[in-house]
Amino acid sequence: MNQDDDLFLKAYLEDRQSIVEEALQRYLPEDGIPADIYKAVRYSVFNGGKRIRPILCLAAAEAVGGDLAPAMPVACALELIHSYSLIHDDLPSMDNDDFRRGKPTCHKVFGENMAILAGDALLTEAFVLLSRAEKVMFSAERRLAVIQEIANAAGIAGMVGGQALDVISEKIGADENTLREIHRRKTGALIVASVKAGAMIFNGGKEKIQALTEYGMNIGQAFQIADDILNVEGDSELMGKGTGSDAARNKLTYPSLMGMEKAKEKLAGHIEAAIASLSGFDDRAMPLIVIARYIKERKS
Amino acid sequence: MNQDDDLFLKAYLEDRQSIVEEALQRYLPEDGIPADIYKAVRYSVFNGGKRIRPILCLAAAEAVGGDLAPAMPVACALELIHSYSLIHDDLPSMDNDDFRRGKPTCHKVFGENMAILAGDALLTEAFVLLSRAEKVMFSAERRLAVIQEIANAAGIAGMVGGQALDVISEKIGADENTLREIHRRKTGALIVASVKAGAMIFNGGKEKIQALTEYGMNIGQAFQIADDILNVEGDSELMGKGTGSDAARNKLTYPSLMGMEKAKEKLAGHIEAAIASLSGFDDRAMPLIVIARYIKERKS
Repeated sequence: MNQDDDLFLKAYLEDRQSIVEEALQRYLPEDGIPADIYKAVRYSVFNGGKRIRPILCLAAAEAVGGDLAPAMPVACALELIHSYSLIHDDLPSMDNDDFRRGKPTCHKVFGENMAILAGDALLTEAFVLLSRAEKVMFSAERRLAVIQEIANAAGIAGMVGGQALDVISEKIGADENTLREIHRRKTGALIVASVKAGAMIFNGGKEKIQALTEYGMNIGQAFQIADDILNVEGDSELMGKGTGSDAARNKLTYPSLMGMEKAKEKLAGHIEAAIASLSGFDDRAMPLIVIARYIKERKS
Repeated sequence: MNQDDDLFLKAYLEDRQSIVEEALQRYLPEDGIPADIYKAVRYSVFNGGKRIRPILCLAAAEAVGGDLAPAMPVACALELIHSYSLIHDDLPSMDNDDFRRGKPTCHKVFGENMAILAGDALLTEAFVLLSRAEKVMFSAERRLAVIQEIANAAGIAGMVGGQALDVISEKIGADENTLREIHRRKTGALIVASVKAGAMIFNGGKEKIQALTEYGMNIGQAFQIADDILNVEGDSELMGKGTGSDAARNKLTYPSLMGMEKAKEKLAGHIEAAIASLSGFDDRAMPLIVIARYIKERKS
């Protein structure tokens, strides 16, 4: 990534993070009864997340010529679903993680019962947001298609099933195919839904939506491999849902499975494929390309 | 309830239970990877539930002149949401119940992690079902309104918030107002959404939907009071989400709060109000009236 890309990306991500942050503040209820559940929800959403899924959704909307405003409730709903999945993944009976992004996890602060309910609330509020009447609107048919896309990505064939497979594989072991299947469902499905939904809102057309699907699948895998590499060489993760303690837990990772060199080759291949899939777009797809390049180059 | 009502109701409920059962079998995925999560989902849905919410939804649809087929995915989605809420309510960190309807609870059979994920899966699949394309259809606008209604009823202002309030009240105690608020959100909100959604599918009209809202609020309260009474005088529950061990747990109930006689008066008042709210309907609302009467009279 050259210096211009680097400067562009930094400013771009900061700008997008701040408008997503502002929208999430607006969409999430401030307070209610009982106070604990409202606090647990906001604690988990406003925890320094990088808002990658909403940013991808908005970037895909712009790549097909759309505006930000109609896409914003969809973008934020994706973040609520991501937040719910992190709360439930961290629970004692799942990954049993005490910290997430350096802060105590939801169940450590609010108790296990409130954490389960906060996750349930966020998942449900995502569909409140996806279905609610907005001034700036796209057609009801397209909104239903977006809900269908996101619900399928989050459901048993997607994210929930992927987490179940991850939990079970930790006990019985896994090969490369299983690892790929876990990531495809646990992380990849919602990333693919993020870019597809962004384009669907503006009737992006079959070919472009198919191209964005390939883009999403490739960056989904790339993010996960990059996280695995950084878990060895660095100390952070951007997109995957590991927590830095995967190595300690003896979880299967790409470097442990195929060696560091091959893992880096695999990562580079996915980035190339992601960028190649956007060849039919004009320069409004530039942010998507720069985001893809960034995945390979980032150091933390 | 006279003998004719009794015979009618028995045949009616059996018939409706069987068509809802058949539809749920059709809508829920049979099998998948990993097998445990698919098994946990089906175990929890096909556990002898009485399908009251779907039956109310279908009855409300018919009361405003609608057919069963377009309402069936909505009716079944309501049951999936109810099933998810029971799985999560039973968890060790919530009510810690080992049995539900005489069978081991989901987490006792599949483990706590699979039970949490099975609940998450059911909640998400409800929205897959609500948004998916069906041959027999109602308009996209109405479907969005139905999704909005159900998501709000299940969300933080409704069912999830009600469960959070219940969990917290068990620790700090509760008065009658809190008890009513817990039931309104934890059980009542989804019952109201069931009858409203049934009518909304067929454009039931503002007045009738308002009348059904009152009907739903009253039978929601009535069911809960009747369950509390049966927990003392009998040994079963139909609708409320207690598990028979509420008394042992020293939970606040209507008989414990106001005495048995006043609780029964309160129950009768809600049944009367529920029936009165349907005065503007023709005889297609008869099943709703008979269901309301049944709540007061049932012995188990």
